Amino acid sequence: MLENLKKEVYEANMLLPKYDLVTFTWGNVSAIDRDKGLFVIKPSGVDYDKLTPDDMVVVDLNGKVVEGDLNPSSDTPTHTVLYNAFPELGGIVHTHSPWAVSFAQAGMDLPATGTTHADTFYGPVPVSDALTKEEIENDYEENTGKVIVRTFKERGLRPMDVPAVLVQDHGPFTWGATAEKAVYNAKVLEVSAEMAYHTLQLQGHGDVSVPQYLLDKHYFRKHGANAYYGQKK
Amino acid sequence: MLENLKKEVYEANMLLPKYDLVTFTWGNVSAIDRDKGLFVIKPSGVDYDKLTPDDMVVVDLNGKVVEGDLNPSSDTPTHTVLYNAFPELGGIVHTHSPWAVSFAQAGMDLPATGTTHADTFYGPVPVSDALTKEEIENDYEENTGKVIVRTFKERGLRPMDVPAVLVQDHGPFTWGATAEKAVYNAKVLEVSAEMAYHTLQLQGHGDVSVPQYLLDKHYFRKHGANAYYGQKK
Amino acid sequence: MLENLKKEVYEANMLLPKYDLVTFTWGNVSAIDRDKGLFVIKPSGVDYDKLTPDDMVVVDLNGKVVEGDLNPSSDTPTHTVLYNAFPELGGIVHTHSPWAVSFAQAGMDLPATGTTHADTFYGPVPVSDALTKEEIENDYEENTGKVIVRTFKERGLRPMDVPAVLVQDHGPFTWGATAEKAVYNAKVLEVSAEMAYHTLQLQGHGDVSVPQYLLDKHYFRKHGANAYYGQKK
Amino acid sequence: MLENLKKEVYEANMLLPKYDLVTFTWGNVSAIDRDKGLFVIKPSGVDYDKLTPDDMVVVDLNGKVVEGDLNPSSDTPTHTVLYNAFPELGGIVHTHSPWAVSFAQAGMDLPATGTTHADTFYGPVPVSDALTKEEIENDYEENTGKVIVRTFKERGLRPMDVPAVLVQDHGPFTWGATAEKAVYNAKVLEVSAEMAYHTLQLQGHGDVSVPQYLLDKHYFRKHGANAYYGQKK
Repeated sequence: MLENLKKEVYEANMLLPKYDLVTFTWGNVSAIDRDKGLFVIKPSGVDYDKLTPDDMVVVDLNGKVVEGDLNPSSDTPTHTVLYNAFPELGGIVHTHSPWAVSFAQAGMDLPATGTTHADTFYGPVPVSDALTKEEIENDYEENTGKVIVRTFKERGLRPMDVPAVLVQDHGPFTWGATAEKAVYNAKVLEVSAEMAYHTLQLQGHGDVSVPQYLLDKHYFRKHGANAYYGQKK
Repeated sequence: MLENLKKEVYEANMLLPKYDLVTFTWGNVSAIDRDKGLFVIKPSGVDYDKLTPDDMVVVDLNGKVVEGDLNPSSDTPTHTVLYNAFPELGGIVHTHSPWAVSFAQAGMDLPATGTTHADTFYGPVPVSDALTKEEIENDYEENTGKVIVRTFKERGLRPMDVPAVLVQDHGPFTWGATAEKAVYNAKVLEVSAEMAYHTLQLQGHGDVSVPQYLLDKHYFRKHGANAYYGQKK
Repeated sequence: MLENLKKEVYEANMLLPKYDLVTFTWGNVSAIDRDKGLFVIKPSGVDYDKLTPDDMVVVDLNGKVVEGDLNPSSDTPTHTVLYNAFPELGGIVHTHSPWAVSFAQAGMDLPATGTTHADTFYGPVPVSDALTKEEIENDYEENTGKVIVRTFKERGLRPMDVPAVLVQDHGPFTWGATAEKAVYNAKVLEVSAEMAYHTLQLQGHGDVSVPQYLLDKHYFRKHGANAYYGQKK
Repeated sequence: MLENLKKEVYEANMLLPKYDLVTFTWGNVSAIDRDKGLFVIKPSGVDYDKLTPDDMVVVDLNGKVVEGDLNPSSDTPTHTVLYNAFPELGGIVHTHSPWAVSFAQAGMDLPATGTTHADTFYGPVPVSDALTKEEIENDYEENTGKVIVRTFKERGLRPMDVPAVLVQDHGPFTWGATAEKAVYNAKVLEVSAEMAYHTLQLQGHGDVSVPQYLLDKHYFRKHGANAYYGQKK
């Protein structure tokens, strides 16, 4: 069942240690088959060096396991909410990459401090609202998805313009058209957070955001109808 | 004598360089056989790339060497005190991992700044009281163990809830049900300290602790009767 | 066409990942044949581990592609302006190396904080003027080259004395007599920026510049008629 | 001539890249044969991956080359002064390791912030006096040696108690009974500087020095007549 997608999700998961985005098993990648309404996700707590494509778990859009011997990632309800709320998403990534986590723990948006950020994220990457005591005590992982969706709605953000969020006190989720692009975005987020941290320290925590016209230039140089970076597809 | 435990302790010691937790020989791991009342520990000052399982030293709960040609780790009296005071401990680790050491040298508790920390440590990791001049001049390594025990008692902490301590001006000790789990905790401590440092810098050293209900959720999601992270054992 | 130069440029590009100066495809190296008035540059958005010497693109000094199946780097117009304005340049490098980017994003010159810097750069590495809205919206990459040239003119700097610039909000360009020397300078810039950052934090952001006579000594020990570092050529 | 010492010095030089202490060729190690009054040193500006034991240069205590086809390190006059002034020295190392350089550039002593430092250095590692304009313009490298000796004299420091110095605005020199021990000290210095930097940031730049009795305990646990760390020799 969904053998190609399992292979894709397996390979995207294996990029996390390759790109230095995980310690131990603290990350997971999923990807969805929109026609079938099913997504494939990493099993919970399995070491990367023991992982195989067959270990991947198939889940439906109600969060029910459809195929697989192992428990899916404990963050599966978060992925489920995001796939339901954002139909553009093809793949989702969660990590505890340390620079992105530092902004999440500080409860700060990641500001757009330069073109490295602007090439991928059209503006600051938002930190989510904090979950309430009630949201944490019951259906925590599902509510994590809901607070992400709420944060994007409140701020009028479109998920494919800013394909990342910092869940407050926790860490980043990123997404994209495919699992591989979602992992790419997770790495850009980490590098952008590292650069933003040092920029803020150099500047004494003043405003370090790029002007809107530079953000426009870099984002649209790589995205949308008039993009001209890279090779013709 | 205790060949399996020696192999286990050897392998746990070899995880320290693998996880980037040691420079030169600055770390040691031990594990205990509670039935026999004996523990196995790394020899003092031997390079990791020359270490073999047979080099491990067997020590009793009075700190006396029972088997082994080499001197045991100079921190053996600290391990002895901890095994005697905390019967839940199966393995103990000491390292000079740099982020954890920085908090120990600053004389600061490691605050619980996010879920990465909360998944493993149920609250701040305490910095120990400073040893007095007298405690340092005589039986220093034994007194290091005693000050750890005293710190846990004074604060009403249970060693398996917070399986780590920062010995002031020195560095971390961690522990767990096995040597391997103690090494796992040493790595989590280092990563959590790195994240906490950057969170504190971003926040201007304000309060960066997570709320108690988030700490509860993440700790008990992974530990105790209702844990649901990972695969069924 | 220009097979040797293509090989040279290919090899210089492959030094960028070797020296830890790039993430993904975020860097490019070019070199020029001054007699023919043609330069060779990396294609846009091609992975380093798929790159071959034959992928290199040949461009003339009007920025027109003369040979090559792939699109040249999107930064080609910046390279074109620099080769035209600075006849001493044999090779040019652009990266998003994180320490240099942090100073570029902070809008700060990289001060000459010690001899590591002074051995290669004869004074601070300037941050460029910010591009205006108009300069960004039209012919952005060409204007990036022009603002670099303008910055060097305004400050009375000679490009071979300070073979590097920090384009504001963006990142570093470096250059040299050859592509390989330009990559060398890119690495020295990154290491110098890392050291300067920590020096500034230790000093509380006071003046951390070396005295002029130390700058003179170290720069001229390695450069010019009386250089005595290294082996006779 | 001195084939064993050449091999020793070659191997100690090769430890510098292994321990991540050098970029490019920015480091050098020497060792002395006190009976013959000759020392062996790395040639100037030769890549580590092309270096062979035969490339090593033999120099006498007047700084004259006695054997070798290549120029010796440009820092040879500094080594010469140190071997003459400090008869206990068997080996000397110079690097531009970034954490140690940051303290040198900030013009700050490296404080003894914990036991990692105290195990090797009996007190703060001094930053040297700044060289005067005259000392820099003539016989610069020789004067670098002299200012190190002057700094130790002024402060009443014995070179084997604190086997390291930070040359102001430049970087560290370390030494020891052998070339290998001098490299060991160079690595301890770098790790101690990294830890001290983060300790200072956490503490708001207050006093972060350990008490004298802890310094005594750790230093003499490893050095001198009553040392008990490691195995019997």
